[in-house]
Amino acid sequence: MKKILGTSLLLLSIAAFSQSKEDSIQFSNISTEILNNGKAYTELKDLTKNIGHRLSGSQGYEKSVQWSAQKLREAGADKVWLQEVIVPLWERGKESLHIRTSGGSWKSLKMLSLGNSEGTGGKDVSGEIIMVRSLEEYEKLHAENVKDKIIFFNYPFSQSYVETFRGYGDAAIYRATAASLTAKKGGKFAIIRSLSSAFDDVPHTGSMRYEESITKIPAVAIGNTTADELEKLLRSQKVTAKLNSNCGMKGEKPTHSVIGEIAGKKDRNVIVVGGHLDSWDVGEGAHDDGAGIVQSIEVLRTFKKLGIPNNHTIRVVCFANEENGVKGGIQYGKTVKENGEKHLFAIESDAGGFTPRGISLEMDDNKRNQIKSWAGLFFPYGVYHFERRHSGTDLYPLHDMGVPAAGLVPDSQRYFDIHHTEEDTFEKVNRRELLLGAVVMTQLIYMIDKNW
Amino acid sequence: MKKILGTSLLLLSIAAFSQSKEDSIQFSNISTEILNNGKAYTELKDLTKNIGHRLSGSQGYEKSVQWSAQKLREAGADKVWLQEVIVPLWERGKESLHIRTSGGSWKSLKMLSLGNSEGTGGKDVSGEIIMVRSLEEYEKLHAENVKDKIIFFNYPFSQSYVETFRGYGDAAIYRATAASLTAKKGGKFAIIRSLSSAFDDVPHTGSMRYEESITKIPAVAIGNTTADELEKLLRSQKVTAKLNSNCGMKGEKPTHSVIGEIAGKKDRNVIVVGGHLDSWDVGEGAHDDGAGIVQSIEVLRTFKKLGIPNNHTIRVVCFANEENGVKGGIQYGKTVKENGEKHLFAIESDAGGFTPRGISLEMDDNKRNQIKSWAGLFFPYGVYHFERRHSGTDLYPLHDMGVPAAGLVPDSQRYFDIHHTEEDTFEKVNRRELLLGAVVMTQLIYMIDKNW
Repeated sequence: MKKILGTSLLLLSIAAFSQSKEDSIQFSNISTEILNNGKAYTELKDLTKNIGHRLSGSQGYEKSVQWSAQKLREAGADKVWLQEVIVPLWERGKESLHIRTSGGSWKSLKMLSLGNSEGTGGKDVSGEIIMVRSLEEYEKLHAENVKDKIIFFNYPFSQSYVETFRGYGDAAIYRATAASLTAKKGGKFAIIRSLSSAFDDVPHTGSMRYEESITKIPAVAIGNTTADELEKLLRSQKVTAKLNSNCGMKGEKPTHSVIGEIAGKKDRNVIVVGGHLDSWDVGEGAHDDGAGIVQSIEVLRTFKKLGIPNNHTIRVVCFANEENGVKGGIQYGKTVKENGEKHLFAIESDAGGFTPRGISLEMDDNKRNQIKSWAGLFFPYGVYHFERRHSGTDLYPLHDMGVPAAGLVPDSQRYFDIHHTEEDTFEKVNRRELLLGAVVMTQLIYMIDKNW
Repeated sequence: MKKILGTSLLLLSIAAFSQSKEDSIQFSNISTEILNNGKAYTELKDLTKNIGHRLSGSQGYEKSVQWSAQKLREAGADKVWLQEVIVPLWERGKESLHIRTSGGSWKSLKMLSLGNSEGTGGKDVSGEIIMVRSLEEYEKLHAENVKDKIIFFNYPFSQSYVETFRGYGDAAIYRATAASLTAKKGGKFAIIRSLSSAFDDVPHTGSMRYEESITKIPAVAIGNTTADELEKLLRSQKVTAKLNSNCGMKGEKPTHSVIGEIAGKKDRNVIVVGGHLDSWDVGEGAHDDGAGIVQSIEVLRTFKKLGIPNNHTIRVVCFANEENGVKGGIQYGKTVKENGEKHLFAIESDAGGFTPRGISLEMDDNKRNQIKSWAGLFFPYGVYHFERRHSGTDLYPLHDMGVPAAGLVPDSQRYFDIHHTEEDTFEKVNRRELLLGAVVMTQLIYMIDKNW
């Protein structure tokens, strides 16, 4: 008995070893294929340079819908379709912000209205600037000291966190709430210091929201060096600001998420890999999130090219409208529910096309521990942490339905230098870094397809 | 007895826990200080923009000697001195490479002579180009087919390795040996495809060497796209190349490594942290190795600023002449031996100012295992691998004397896009990535100073 047990254990370990050996070889094949023949980088160049930025509802977005459907077909998808999504239509239009000290002349400041913000309707709106450094400081201001004033929320992006997403999370409340907070006390508009890890003068846009039944006053962002200069000026004198902007919500519009898949050989249960196709209306939406789109298409292409036999359906979703509404993610989740499609797993890449370091896991402990047990396979590819963390904004409707969700976690050091700015361009993306993200997503989907 | 033992174990674990807690707090203090107040980035801007590249023996190098001595004083070194080093003096001068097909006119190619290479003495040297793709292919060529020809070693940098240093190591033999191999069979000069991970037209220089008693013929590098075009051309027709260059060795010259230290409070045993001050004569030597220099100075500054009590002497060494002779490292080792100075540990940063991922360890297993046992402290700073690997070129004389040596291992994806080129400029360095390297070196030296 003892001997038989020993032999069985030996056979089992040999099986486990050759299993792991086979996976290790497949990991290597995937990596070699993508690093040498991957198309994500040249496709990102095409998307960013020939289409450019693509806010929901814009012409650029519509072009990118056709473009990604075509790329999915070229990558070898069995089936490609568009999923209708009704998106909010926000437009920027012309905008300018000027300041002057008493007796001085107007000086133009580099700025961006925050996304979703209403403008001044093309009229000049001006008032004295009151600076606060934090929400606590703002809370202490009496309404009479805010009335008809411009509130400058000068809260700095913390450099102290090693993971820059924590600095972003810490400061994000200012972008979200500055306008409504200012309006509640009768202020005319809000200026925020950009959510930026860089020491430069680039303003960062991004979504803000209005509290219900609060007057919708404008909110704009200025870059870090402009914020520093304004702070210095305010120390010694009164400063008046004048805003003129045309931005605002222009209703809704139907558009599409783009979906392509290769059907499962064993069943039609679905594994989703995606990113969001829309971007803010400045720069080229290269890291945010052109990267996630071209990486997801690369996953599908690699399965076809290497002939990896997929048990389940592997589906690429290019989500519409992540930036200002998540209507694409919500519509996708709704459709999955209506059609009763079983989803095994979903992963999104929406943290930039930088070298991967980990995979964030939103799922039960059993599933998470199983993925963690594969860590040794991922280690040679620079992926070493598998933590319970936010997966991807577009995936929350799926996650809410119980679908295990994950996110690619790339190195975060450079992301918030360029996030939501004119500087988020193709030139900021490195070929190998981008491709390695696609490598890791393909490897993970290979393991999940095989084992779940 | 059992109770006493139990209590002792409990007290011991409490001691170990509070020890580790204390270290974890110190790690956090170091990180917060450097990420917020670190000067490495602005100092690198000063070094690269106001001095620029600094090949051994050049005016730029001499300026950088004075500059780094000054920066070490400003950082709080107790003592700063220059260590004389005799370095080879290589100069580039004017250079050009042209090609033509029969009946065609001369076309200029972007190129760089390899470092240490002799030139043509300002005369045109021309001949037919013969392309080989590997050393094996070259070995098969008969001498009569090489005689008076130009050999083009078109060996590509492998994209397949995840760590780009492996691709570099794989291709480096071509840069080192192309000239001597060509000379042995009577060829006129050698052209190599650059050791470059980028898909661009930037030529990469770097050191080559001549075998003794072989004629010193020139060797030059061309960028990847030029190499591809030349290959295409050679498929259908004969191509003649013409080189005219003035480079060559111009004897030797005395210069200096720069050293600064804070004396140990307990003893004067030495912990070295360093980088190399020289660079190639193109670009600005920003990643290679201005980064290592400013990071090393940051380590010293941080010890002083935070008042971390150093048991042992912490010494910054800005090594002369890593690129084409390692005379600085050799002289440093020699002086240590002559003075009988006990060295506990040495670390070099010479792999670029990118986000750190690991620490390479060249030392006995006991020491390596002790450092590995600190992995949990480093994990939150993105450092997760501690492998037996090359530490730093300047450290080999110390390592040969038995000094435990280490190297900072940053993310390697972008390094060989710009290594030894016009593109190795300040703009390619990210502030947070650079500073995090200094954080990790300071943390490691804090642990070693405390425990060794």
